[in-house]
Amino acid sequence: MLLPDDFKANTKIKVNNHLFNKENLPGHFKFKEYCPQVFRNLRERFGIEDLDYQVSLTRSSPVRSVDDQGEGLLLYSYDRTLVIKQISSEDVADMHTILSEYHQHIVKCHGSTLLPQFLGMYRVGVDSEETYLIVMRNMFSHRLLVHRKYDLKGSLVAREASDKEKGKELPTFKDMDFRNNMQKVYVTEEQKAKLMEKLNRDVEFLVKLKIMDYSLLLGIHDVGRAEREEEEGEEVYNEEEQETENGLAPGPAVGSFGTSPEGIAGYMSCYKPLGPGEFDPYVDVYAVGSCPGAPQKEVYFMGLIDVLTQYDTKKKAAHAAKTVKHGAGAEISTVHPEQYAKRFRDFISNIFA
Amino acid sequence: MLLPDDFKANTKIKVNNHLFNKENLPGHFKFKEYCPQVFRNLRERFGIEDLDYQVSLTRSSPVRSVDDQGEGLLLYSYDRTLVIKQISSEDVADMHTILSEYHQHIVKCHGSTLLPQFLGMYRVGVDSEETYLIVMRNMFSHRLLVHRKYDLKGSLVAREASDKEKGKELPTFKDMDFRNNMQKVYVTEEQKAKLMEKLNRDVEFLVKLKIMDYSLLLGIHDVGRAEREEEEGEEVYNEEEQETENGLAPGPAVGSFGTSPEGIAGYMSCYKPLGPGEFDPYVDVYAVGSCPGAPQKEVYFMGLIDVLTQYDTKKKAAHAAKTVKHGAGAEISTVHPEQYAKRFRDFISNIFA
Repeated sequence: MLLPDDFKANTKIKVNNHLFNKENLPGHFKFKEYCPQVFRNLRERFGIEDLDYQVSLTRSSPVRSVDDQGEGLLLYSYDRTLVIKQISSEDVADMHTILSEYHQHIVKCHGSTLLPQFLGMYRVGVDSEETYLIVMRNMFSHRLLVHRKYDLKGSLVAREASDKEKGKELPTFKDMDFRNNMQKVYVTEEQKAKLMEKLNRDVEFLVKLKIMDYSLLLGIHDVGRAEREEEEGEEVYNEEEQETENGLAPGPAVGSFGTSPEGIAGYMSCYKPLGPGEFDPYVDVYAVGSCPGAPQKEVYFMGLIDVLTQYDTKKKAAHAAKTVKHGAGAEISTVHPEQYAKRFRDFISNIFA
Repeated sequence: MLLPDDFKANTKIKVNNHLFNKENLPGHFKFKEYCPQVFRNLRERFGIEDLDYQVSLTRSSPVRSVDDQGEGLLLYSYDRTLVIKQISSEDVADMHTILSEYHQHIVKCHGSTLLPQFLGMYRVGVDSEETYLIVMRNMFSHRLLVHRKYDLKGSLVAREASDKEKGKELPTFKDMDFRNNMQKVYVTEEQKAKLMEKLNRDVEFLVKLKIMDYSLLLGIHDVGRAEREEEEGEEVYNEEEQETENGLAPGPAVGSFGTSPEGIAGYMSCYKPLGPGEFDPYVDVYAVGSCPGAPQKEVYFMGLIDVLTQYDTKKKAAHAAKTVKHGAGAEISTVHPEQYAKRFRDFISNIFA
């Protein structure tokens, strides 16, 4: 049972090393965990065991994402099941504001949500520099590569990937690109209904909290391409350079470890090996496979990202600025939470084939 | 490779819990480990793996020894392989003074010594109260009960257990009692020679450091008695009250755990089970079995204890006081380190049958 105090709790650890381990560790560092009981409870509701979480986070160093471009750290846990994201101290305050309602929402929907699965929030201090981190479940797969990726907001103004972005290995395409590419998501009617039901419930929650500017992150794994690349690329994996297209080191081979705990994805090694395009719905919770009639066999990963922006004075200022630039009534992405939600939902309901 | 700095190093951890885990943990506590690299190196030389050490110390709460009577904590690790003893801040300073030479001694004798095996030294601070702790290998067995116990210094003055002490379940007898009981240690000539060689080497080391007032701790396990008691006591073990004669809860049953690490004594479960009076020399390093011609089958545990008292001004004061009381030249236990060592060695060489 969580108590109101648990939403204000924290535990701080300060380490002072005097002449100890100077080569590997700073002499002084601090570590703060926010609301430990709440996040532990959330992890439980998301079906993540504490030991697995710890192992995924700490067994080997996390790897830097290619999307991490100096604006703040973006890391994947070594087994690629977790995302570790640098956030601002304002984000930490925002999380504290919404945490109780977020927790209620997760309880109500039994952990079945397109929202980010917030699993832990920390402050790390080395010397006098403090870094705030949030740990979430990776919305993409720990083993299936994503070949194309969209960030969708439901706005067509300034929602096209720049040429620079398009030149990347894995660009983040936007709403205009989605339209121009004639992109579609091929899932069964039943799966679409299920997804929209989750989405509507989540968006309602976000409106209630006056949150906006979130996106639907859509990742697409092309099963045929992956199979071809695996055949061609078998030698590549034997070389020193193990970076894959996502800029991530390949995850642990299934069944490559002994009987010791192996993190969130680890228990899979106990079960049957997975074939091409197959995924374990207990680990890849945001995944949906393409329907039988689809033009190609694909796996879609869909989740809501950037859900920490509340409609506050800062946003009002941005709204005013954009209205001046594009004229009132133009389809701009900075609008009121209700308007934002409506536009967003309408757009998303049309991404399906 | 240890460096001079490693003998002055420490690592401090300070924990501040705000509204977290209030029921089980204090809001603030501190933890300091002294010379972590040195003790890690010592553990290695004593054949104790880090993970086993950690598990022995932390898997379950340590248990209080019956000898712990308010003068300072005396605990056994849950698996009874380790002793955790409260020491004074002066003892911590003394340990720092001798640690480098102690380490050299352990290197030279390849860990084969009757001295205490110092495995870790810590300070624990809760609220404003600080407790200093040293962790050593248990000189007695983690599984064979000790039925009689002597603390021998080689002095006959004031070296008899008090009536109060004799009334205890397991009294600590002294030199006079040893003589009066006609106690003898029955080991082979070869074992005696080996023991005396170790003892001489260790005592030389103590003399060099001007240390005195140490004792030989002798514990005797009576194999026949243990067998009889096991037969009689089988029902007792099934009762709620699990305290044994030593005041310790019975150790983990051999083979009672799964495949997870089980502490220092744990790996035994992988090997053959041990019969009555048998011990694993890798765990019970201070144990020697009685020789074939002995009047009864026994196991002796012998080690040097209380080796932190240096011959300093405090001792000089005690010496003066005792000389006044007993007259100069009387066999008193407070003498110079060289004299102390000689008398000690002479006495110990005569405890054998």
